[in-house]
Amino acid sequence: MDNTSKFPLVVIIGGGFGGLEVAKKLADAPVEVLMLDKHNYHTFQPLLYQVATGSLEAESIAFSLRKNFSGQKNFRFRIAEVSAIDSENNLLDTTIGPIAYDYLIIATGSTTNFFGNKEIERFAMPMKSIPEALNLRYLILQNLEEAVRTTNKDDRAALLSFVLVGAGPTGVELAGSLAELRNHILTKDYPELQKEEMKVYLVDFLPKVLGPFSDEGSNAAKEFLTGMGVEVLLNMKVESYDGKEIKFEGGKSIKTRNVIWSAGVMGVVPEGLSKDNLERGNRIRTDGSLRLNGYNNIFAIGDVAAMITDKTPKGHPGVAQVAIQQGQHAAKNILHILKGQPTEVFEYNDKGSLATIGRNKAIADLGKLKFQGFFAWLIWMFVHLISLLGFRNKIVVFINWVGSYFSNNGGTRLIIRGFKREELSKKDEQVSVPD
Amino acid sequence: MDNTSKFPLVVIIGGGFGGLEVAKKLADAPVEVLMLDKHNYHTFQPLLYQVATGSLEAESIAFSLRKNFSGQKNFRFRIAEVSAIDSENNLLDTTIGPIAYDYLIIATGSTTNFFGNKEIERFAMPMKSIPEALNLRYLILQNLEEAVRTTNKDDRAALLSFVLVGAGPTGVELAGSLAELRNHILTKDYPELQKEEMKVYLVDFLPKVLGPFSDEGSNAAKEFLTGMGVEVLLNMKVESYDGKEIKFEGGKSIKTRNVIWSAGVMGVVPEGLSKDNLERGNRIRTDGSLRLNGYNNIFAIGDVAAMITDKTPKGHPGVAQVAIQQGQHAAKNILHILKGQPTEVFEYNDKGSLATIGRNKAIADLGKLKFQGFFAWLIWMFVHLISLLGFRNKIVVFINWVGSYFSNNGGTRLIIRGFKREELSKKDEQVSVPD
Repeated sequence: MDNTSKFPLVVIIGGGFGGLEVAKKLADAPVEVLMLDKHNYHTFQPLLYQVATGSLEAESIAFSLRKNFSGQKNFRFRIAEVSAIDSENNLLDTTIGPIAYDYLIIATGSTTNFFGNKEIERFAMPMKSIPEALNLRYLILQNLEEAVRTTNKDDRAALLSFVLVGAGPTGVELAGSLAELRNHILTKDYPELQKEEMKVYLVDFLPKVLGPFSDEGSNAAKEFLTGMGVEVLLNMKVESYDGKEIKFEGGKSIKTRNVIWSAGVMGVVPEGLSKDNLERGNRIRTDGSLRLNGYNNIFAIGDVAAMITDKTPKGHPGVAQVAIQQGQHAAKNILHILKGQPTEVFEYNDKGSLATIGRNKAIADLGKLKFQGFFAWLIWMFVHLISLLGFRNKIVVFINWVGSYFSNNGGTRLIIRGFKREELSKKDEQVSVPD
Repeated sequence: MDNTSKFPLVVIIGGGFGGLEVAKKLADAPVEVLMLDKHNYHTFQPLLYQVATGSLEAESIAFSLRKNFSGQKNFRFRIAEVSAIDSENNLLDTTIGPIAYDYLIIATGSTTNFFGNKEIERFAMPMKSIPEALNLRYLILQNLEEAVRTTNKDDRAALLSFVLVGAGPTGVELAGSLAELRNHILTKDYPELQKEEMKVYLVDFLPKVLGPFSDEGSNAAKEFLTGMGVEVLLNMKVESYDGKEIKFEGGKSIKTRNVIWSAGVMGVVPEGLSKDNLERGNRIRTDGSLRLNGYNNIFAIGDVAAMITDKTPKGHPGVAQVAIQQGQHAAKNILHILKGQPTEVFEYNDKGSLATIGRNKAIADLGKLKFQGFFAWLIWMFVHLISLLGFRNKIVVFINWVGSYFSNNGGTRLIIRGFKREELSKKDEQVSVPD
């Protein structure tokens, strides 16, 4: 693809929280913007877990990137994956051919980190994208279906055991959501099952849940979870999982057909950059201006970036707020460069952390203000609703939540393209049954 | 699966319009009910075309069968496909093992009929289920994406040509919906494309669109379509389609990468029944009581059934109303049999036909009352909204429609699990890209 305009071309790889902000901020700038993403939609990752448990339809937490920028004259979009960056020639190698750039924003985000354990990677379910959340939903629902027709007690128990590895916000929210499924829905949908048969375990190698939260928040979260019937297992390190039994260091093990892995992430980095540019967690090291060391025209933002300065020796946390603010900042720095002005150093404005456990139960750490329970839950809902792209999505999600709140039986729980168990090991490909 | 209850077991194959009614009607009867379906949801087929064009999310026109019957004490559900009926032993051979029945309701519906043309079957898209409607959506959207980056004029024209074969309600509604996509959305989402580049053709071998409708209705539909820019080609018989060019008898041909086939249906009949039981269109012949000739305990209803009597020598049309009324009637006849009473003959109460072409444009043939245009469109919307299962679905669809009406840019148009073109020929299996 050639840039035939007289303006420099800014190519953004990734339409996540960070990429969106760059494109928006450059709307009226004297540049052309080209966004590449392997999907034609933005994913609102904070609600993926509700797609996984069948509370929300996938399309409510996704928004068409074309539609979002419809009307922005300098914006173009292509579905493409970038395989390599040729930084000497300012050229990308992509699934739709070579693409030249003048400025490059790497906003490729992160994926699940199995820390090199191939067996766990094969059998445990990740949940970092909508297709992965749907696969997880189908695993859960298909295992409930199988449990109904399984008479062997051990097999049935393994089908009805859910082990969540990693007690960060994703693990905590999934645990809460699964506990609500058990407490309120299980016996309505599956009269052959007993509530007590379904077990939810939340496991972490740290001594607390919600590691980066305040102690008050973390303790409250653990109490909420325990009260809902989740077994919280801390200081536990996973040793292996073969699809049937998860084993921990020290000898404990749980027979389960459902292991969900949210114990770590790593940056998604295209080929072509020097390995010297990479930090812990496969993140791309940048300077304070968010540019890669040694490059004038390549920026990295969000989950894939590690801005290493004296003040931020480990970079920033992998959360949406960092990506959003870095996206705005990278765009601002491009505008500075175009005007021949010096770039500015990025400073993160931490607005706090939120996590929900269930109905009326959430944790809000907002600087010195800390809430646990109903008020935190209202804040959580409000912040998530206003952050969703699209008026339709806001309304549809709101209706789903109101419906669930009053009926205690919300959600759709459909298996629209499930998979065969023998294909589970190919889950990274896409594992649908014939239809 | 064994029936350990003291009541006879009624097994219903299929959770479509007919199957649902049987189960509902038997709620308080002295029977056990077991419903089998290959999906865990009911599909509201009349709105499939809106899923295909990205106007509605799939989950709004589907409803969990378990949730629908949650609370009905004598109801059980299993995801299963029935491969064969052993009518001598009252036994079904299914994907989850053998299942014994006392009464059997065959409500398996219909699938696309390619009339034995393997080449067309391989390359043309059907649209009879949600996965098929999603595949069609992905084909449409992926071809628009490909057109944007295709410079060869002929290739681009073929990607942007849509040929709908069969001008029944499905073809007409799809044609209208695609015309609206072109007229209102195309250049907003794809600024690189021109409205005039996209062509929509509606083809039928009959001399009219909406064959079974009144002449007024049929003529109005044709006029609406033509006014929206659809080329209506009548008296045209398809000869071949090789994925690139569709050829008609008489020499005409159109280069197109998008052929959608709604030119015929045929019943989905499990093995094991005598071929003598089959009528034209692979439908199972029944007597006036909806029972198969020679069987006291096997009924067939809806699209898969052809009730052949002196008054109905060809059976009934394959529409939702027939399935619904036959479902209620079959349940009633089972109750009669249980009480030792004679069965009753089914009489169809034809409430009329509806089809929509687009915004403010629909056709309503309601006996002597015939409407075309805005009022018919209001009737169409009202009837479809109240017929949707689930309060949530009603609201979500309504919001989508209101949004589309006022913005002229509704719909989500997401490719959540698309497919690779080279896999198109395997579309009946699983045609998704890795994700």
